[in-house]
Amino acid sequence: MSTVTFDDWKKFDLKVGEVLEVARVPKTEKLYKLQVDIGTDKPIQIVTSLVPYYSEEELKGKKIVVLVNLEKAKFGGEISEGMLLCAETEDESKCVLLTPHKDIEAGTPIM
Amino acid sequence: MSTVTFDDWKKFDLKVGEVLEVARVPKTEKLYKLQVDIGTDKPIQIVTSLVPYYSEEELKGKKIVVLVNLEKAKFGGEISEGMLLCAETEDESKCVLLTPHKDIEAGTPIM
Repeated sequence: MSTVTFDDWKKFDLKVGEVLEVARVPKTEKLYKLQVDIGTDKPIQIVTSLVPYYSEEELKGKKIVVLVNLEKAKFGGEISEGMLLCAETEDESKCVLLTPHKDIEAGTPIM
Repeated sequence: MSTVTFDDWKKFDLKVGEVLEVARVPKTEKLYKLQVDIGTDKPIQIVTSLVPYYSEEELKGKKIVVLVNLEKAKFGGEISEGMLLCAETEDESKCVLLTPHKDIEAGTPIM
């Protein structure tokens, strides 16, 4: 992969998010839709294929890392307003969310 | 901040790193130099201003998140070959490392 600059990096708006609600997307195998507090008035919706890796109970209340200014996309008929970050092995056998090492408020920017 | 695309995002090589060694950078107040395993033959060196937030003992052995293909830079006379990701409040009173929620190998890509 070619080199990127710090100015390139600053175009990405990454924030700590807190998962407020979790629901399965009907008629899909892997998709959850999450309502995520990112420190703004209204939570954003994120659609993510974490069903094989995390239960609804595990996700609810969790602090995660969200790319906030990604262009919106539709998955399973649902709008996704951002992307959460995971560490994922190339064979997709493991997928692990990123989280702040100590508790910190939703909306805190990632540097 | 303006919107970014998924293709923009894919230019960033983010990986799980494991902190192998920690040392203060002499004649600086805030800088550590870390040797970080990113799943390659040789660890990379990262210079980071975490002295006010983390002790050497806390950092050693920790799994972190590293931007690997950032252009190299010098801080306190030491080369930094990447950047680790933190959540940092705007008043800089808190700075918290990002870490995988469950253990996963150094070198695992972040999606």
